[in-house]
Amino acid sequence: MTAWTLAQRAAKMNPSVIREILKVTEKPGIISLAGGLPSPQTFPIESFAQAAAQVLGNEGAAALQYSASEGYTPLREAVAAFLPWEVHPDQVLITTGSQQALDLVAKVLIDEGSRVLVETPTYLGALQAFTPMEPRIEAVASDDEGILVDDLAAKVGSGGTRARFLYVLPNFQNPTGRTMTEARRQQLVERAAELGLPILEDNPYGELWFDQPPPKPLTARNPEGGIYMGSFSKVLAPGLRLGFVVAPQHIYPKLLQAKQAADLHTPSFNQRLVAEVMKNGFLERHVPTIRQLYKRQCEAMLAALEEHLAPLGVTWNRPAGGMFLWLRLPEGMSALELLPRAVAHDVAFVPGAAFYAQEGDARTLRLSFVTATEEQIRTAIAALAAAIREGA
Amino acid sequence: MTAWTLAQRAAKMNPSVIREILKVTEKPGIISLAGGLPSPQTFPIESFAQAAAQVLGNEGAAALQYSASEGYTPLREAVAAFLPWEVHPDQVLITTGSQQALDLVAKVLIDEGSRVLVETPTYLGALQAFTPMEPRIEAVASDDEGILVDDLAAKVGSGGTRARFLYVLPNFQNPTGRTMTEARRQQLVERAAELGLPILEDNPYGELWFDQPPPKPLTARNPEGGIYMGSFSKVLAPGLRLGFVVAPQHIYPKLLQAKQAADLHTPSFNQRLVAEVMKNGFLERHVPTIRQLYKRQCEAMLAALEEHLAPLGVTWNRPAGGMFLWLRLPEGMSALELLPRAVAHDVAFVPGAAFYAQEGDARTLRLSFVTATEEQIRTAIAALAAAIREGA
Repeated sequence: MTAWTLAQRAAKMNPSVIREILKVTEKPGIISLAGGLPSPQTFPIESFAQAAAQVLGNEGAAALQYSASEGYTPLREAVAAFLPWEVHPDQVLITTGSQQALDLVAKVLIDEGSRVLVETPTYLGALQAFTPMEPRIEAVASDDEGILVDDLAAKVGSGGTRARFLYVLPNFQNPTGRTMTEARRQQLVERAAELGLPILEDNPYGELWFDQPPPKPLTARNPEGGIYMGSFSKVLAPGLRLGFVVAPQHIYPKLLQAKQAADLHTPSFNQRLVAEVMKNGFLERHVPTIRQLYKRQCEAMLAALEEHLAPLGVTWNRPAGGMFLWLRLPEGMSALELLPRAVAHDVAFVPGAAFYAQEGDARTLRLSFVTATEEQIRTAIAALAAAIREGA
Repeated sequence: MTAWTLAQRAAKMNPSVIREILKVTEKPGIISLAGGLPSPQTFPIESFAQAAAQVLGNEGAAALQYSASEGYTPLREAVAAFLPWEVHPDQVLITTGSQQALDLVAKVLIDEGSRVLVETPTYLGALQAFTPMEPRIEAVASDDEGILVDDLAAKVGSGGTRARFLYVLPNFQNPTGRTMTEARRQQLVERAAELGLPILEDNPYGELWFDQPPPKPLTARNPEGGIYMGSFSKVLAPGLRLGFVVAPQHIYPKLLQAKQAADLHTPSFNQRLVAEVMKNGFLERHVPTIRQLYKRQCEAMLAALEEHLAPLGVTWNRPAGGMFLWLRLPEGMSALELLPRAVAHDVAFVPGAAFYAQEGDARTLRLSFVTATEEQIRTAIAALAAAIREGA
């Protein structure tokens, strides 16, 4: 018999709660507000078809060949030009989705037992990416405006147990939909610099604002103090798995070596495809149509919540962009217990508990307003109300 | 000042020697026999263009959306059907190139300080993928027929220092081009089973045989005793980054969790593209054309070696397939010292020392016969002879 011995980190790795929920919700007829899947209406399929023909016709051999681990130069240049602070293309590393950026950063910055600070609650995928490197993940208290800097200062620590970095998602956060205010950003960047604490800034949703762009990124305020991650998943399409990371010069080579060991490079074809689609200001024309659609769907959800859930004592936030709304059930109710009843009523969501690094708030839950249509959203919220009433 | 602290593994990670050499060889006019880049002549560009139009036209929304971490079901089915032993599609995990399979296996099977056994010499990318998990990598002695099983038995160890697995590339190995014989395979699988040692079998080149297929895979002989890795990079195109791993049922879920944390899933579009191209037995028609081309180029290189290098006392092997030839310089010569002289003569190769986990043979070097044309190969080998004569 073969004696397989698993690494100790394997015991800490777990299937994604969201993934398990998504499986349950695959029954026909269910309206899922659970997943963070962009609306397929927003995918510029025709533009991709033209770009694919173009790329394979004009540069097929290069698009199908091995390529540089750093990424395709014109795409790195386009990313650098797109970012709202001075970024040199040499600082841009193209990743296989921004999830990979989290994996690379974890490899380069986390030792077993290293302390890592995150928001309360935070992006589940980041917790999953960090976990294999076996950190101690600690939650920093947050309010509606973002991280509480005094709690951050209290938790940084010193010497060998000093936190390696703070992971933060300032725009239309996953899962809460909240946006860090200008004042809080400035306060956070200054305090982190004083504390010498690196900031890992994740910005997959920043372009998806409804009425006005969010305040400028944290990294733009102190480029040497942080690593910035972005994605093409929400502005073009997630199925191509294209993201990027921007890192200070002395960190970049290590991320690059980790990238090379992880998958050699991000698919050459996909990088050229997106560079081709992005030509001539495509995003400037395309992204506003996504903003409009998501704003409309968010408003439909807010109206349905007002109609069906306000009378039941449920509360929620009003996001200024992004994909998610954060709900809180009345005292004594549990989102985890609500889920099977909701599924029986043909609607699914993600219980908030999944998003906490430590103890969570059992009354919270996350709703996505981007995948379902307005009509489905109205149906789903009414169904959710019925499920809540049943449990009351 | 921000106080960045790197993980201890970061200090162990290094830029690829090959990559650094490739940079040197980017000077115009150089003929590189260094890289392992498939001949772009073999890329079925027109088939990909048709498949891209088909996939985006018929299933564009699904091809551009997030998808399952396991991979696209029809592609998993095609892989399972293609393999020469009974594999259930549920055992197949699609990876972002087979390099990623190495990263996932390392995460799941290697703890800091774990002993890992490899061939002498071995694939450099595997060493790079294992290193971030901080194993102690040990080389098992090999001869022209493959791993020496007695040396393997001597090095397995026991208790806490027992080796986690043996990594082996039985077909047209990178870097040596050698193929493990039928007898040695059977001996190795039986001995490994007795020892309880898992085998990690890497087979990117197996389809590239010249006259007859190599003996059946190790994993086919004891599927519960190993993990098998394959790739579409050498039979279709590397720029799509598509590989796969086949694992026993109790290991699979952990590889899947590692995959999900690493990049969520392999690009949906690329998976559907390759599944589309593979329809109707495409590989059965296409792969023989690659075999013929590489056989011709290998023969051209062997003839040129006979003409120019045999008189200088250089020796080499005669591969039965794959992409690489392994040379040994006369006593007293160093491949590393030869390289700059060769580059001055407009030819590049990889010194063999790069491929050894421990102390290497300084006289060895790797030549690729697939990227350059026959005429370039003849020119390059004559140039290499000139460089060798200069140093004698």
